Amino acid sequence: MRLLRGQTAGSGKGSLTLARIALDAMGGDRAPAATVAGALLALEDFGSKHVIQLIGREQVIRAELARQLAGEFAGKAVDVSRLQFVDAPDVIEMSDKPTVAIRGKPKSSMVVGLRMQADGASDAFVSAGNTGAQMAASIFIFRLHDGLTRPAIPTLFPTARIPIVVLDSGANVDCSADELVQFARLGCVYAEDVLGRANPSVGLLSIGEEPEKGNAVTKEAHALLAAAGLNFQGNVEGRDLPMGASERGPVDVVVCDGFVGNVMLKFYEAVAPMIVKLIADAGAGPDVLAGAMKKLDYASTGGAPLLGVRGVSIIAHGKSSANAIRNALHVAARTFDTGMSAHIGQRLAQRAAEQQGALS
Amino acid sequence: MRLLRGQTAGSGKGSLTLARIALDAMGGDRAPAATVAGALLALEDFGSKHVIQLIGREQVIRAELARQLAGEFAGKAVDVSRLQFVDAPDVIEMSDKPTVAIRGKPKSSMVVGLRMQADGASDAFVSAGNTGAQMAASIFIFRLHDGLTRPAIPTLFPTARIPIVVLDSGANVDCSADELVQFARLGCVYAEDVLGRANPSVGLLSIGEEPEKGNAVTKEAHALLAAAGLNFQGNVEGRDLPMGASERGPVDVVVCDGFVGNVMLKFYEAVAPMIVKLIADAGAGPDVLAGAMKKLDYASTGGAPLLGVRGVSIIAHGKSSANAIRNALHVAARTFDTGMSAHIGQRLAQRAAEQQGALS
Repeated sequence: MRLLRGQTAGSGKGSLTLARIALDAMGGDRAPAATVAGALLALEDFGSKHVIQLIGREQVIRAELARQLAGEFAGKAVDVSRLQFVDAPDVIEMSDKPTVAIRGKPKSSMVVGLRMQADGASDAFVSAGNTGAQMAASIFIFRLHDGLTRPAIPTLFPTARIPIVVLDSGANVDCSADELVQFARLGCVYAEDVLGRANPSVGLLSIGEEPEKGNAVTKEAHALLAAAGLNFQGNVEGRDLPMGASERGPVDVVVCDGFVGNVMLKFYEAVAPMIVKLIADAGAGPDVLAGAMKKLDYASTGGAPLLGVRGVSIIAHGKSSANAIRNALHVAARTFDTGMSAHIGQRLAQRAAEQQGALS
Repeated sequence: MRLLRGQTAGSGKGSLTLARIALDAMGGDRAPAATVAGALLALEDFGSKHVIQLIGREQVIRAELARQLAGEFAGKAVDVSRLQFVDAPDVIEMSDKPTVAIRGKPKSSMVVGLRMQADGASDAFVSAGNTGAQMAASIFIFRLHDGLTRPAIPTLFPTARIPIVVLDSGANVDCSADELVQFARLGCVYAEDVLGRANPSVGLLSIGEEPEKGNAVTKEAHALLAAAGLNFQGNVEGRDLPMGASERGPVDVVVCDGFVGNVMLKFYEAVAPMIVKLIADAGAGPDVLAGAMKKLDYASTGGAPLLGVRGVSIIAHGKSSANAIRNALHVAARTFDTGMSAHIGQRLAQRAAEQQGALS
């Protein structure tokens, strides 16, 4: 099968271009069952669009595919000619150090998948495997856009309104004020391109509304964000997140360091089921709860692009189900189609030029 | 009325001693209505025990009291002879800077109430007013126990199990590793004395189970906590909080810096009603939800002692209802009765002696 590189990347908002999406078939706690099933579900959705490149131990993947096609997918209209197999014998374990991909396992599905994109043979990469290794390999192979010192992982937080983007959510534990501003820029392009939000508003996570509230880094970041040329709405507090808005209005992007973001994310993931269980114990019926939980479902997001690298690297949750993988593949297609990575580069270059102009 | 200083403070666990509890009648968003009503509710509970000292603008307080005794408390068995009035004409506003109490408003209810305790005329102080001012005034008037550089505010987090103590929850935004260890010591004595937990287990809030996960401060704190002579259970993650346990078992005390703690606390306060609203929208009846919400109700805690100062200073939520004030008065009685502050001093002195011994 001949694979064509998308012609309209970066300009085709709305009309999805053909994308060649590499999926780390070995990545995640439930691989390869969930990854293969997720690929088949996405193929059903995609119809005649997009190609999915299954990267990993080819024999294992083909065996799993045959099993599912004879089982849960028997009789379904899945165009398997849109699946491609790329053998990658090494497997990166969840417990491996982040640098293992680059230093020790060059034939892993991660390195192979990312290198294919760098070489022009693929358009996007999706993995539910070792996040640290995926980040390190993505930075090493794609490089960061100029003006960035770190990439960031955005997370979509369900709210009473619409989901908001919280970043960083774990990639960077100790951050400078300048890095929080970088996260804001990255989050805005992500919100525009992948979520379709126009002129996204930015909030800085802190412990009070006033600029002078916060720790040393957030106080400094507040001043920098106010002068960053973004739609900055000031500080937001923990209580504003479930509403998706502060007293000054709705917020689309919330920046914080990856330590706080990760603690909050994991807390949120766990607190919703806990409260639902309390309510179930009190006697609510399963239908009622299922309706409410849909809004709190993380699997509906699927995955997030690693922001800042010159390429498309989608990070999915290690516990991803088939449905989460399917949704991550959709995120990959959209991230590629909108040309988000190129937009980030353009936006950063434009800002650098503005600052150059202001200085001279 | 002659007020006797409690005879058995610090030794009378279980059998409550007479306590003279000063209440900042002007403090909080709903004062003086909520504070006066809270005092009357607590008096009903206390029976012939304890005296409540209403501190603030005496005329305003007496007028509010007369109104309530003729209204919602008409015909109830409240022994108003156990109320004492102490005039304090200055009022600290929520927007005042923390140092205002000490520098600018010496006749405020806060300063008057705390000074009475320092002078031996009161046993405990409760306020729902400006938390920063209460902290600053408590440190200034009571001083910290030896071995501490900061006080901490503990918060009780409802969990699927029993509530856990999270500290610091806002008093200290930038913390050293050594200060996190101080918080652990303070939280343990609080958990023992006020919550009645034997040999409380301590977790360090981080972003992974492994000691090497976390930001710079938590990684250093992990090593210090492991050698601190506490029942340290290692790192806990955001997902462990709603369970009140990590994979290694139940946790009673979770330490973190005040920035993370405050963000989490406010997030938790807001996320529970949001989820309950989602479930109500999906069709759950009010009785079902009320049953579940009881476990998530912050008002049932009422207030937390400011940990580390040589005295009893109970911090209540600015939005405290009458019931929250009532419960804060109970916390005050228990904190005084168990001699928690003295225990903290003893524990710290004992630890200092051990370390002295280890060095010599």
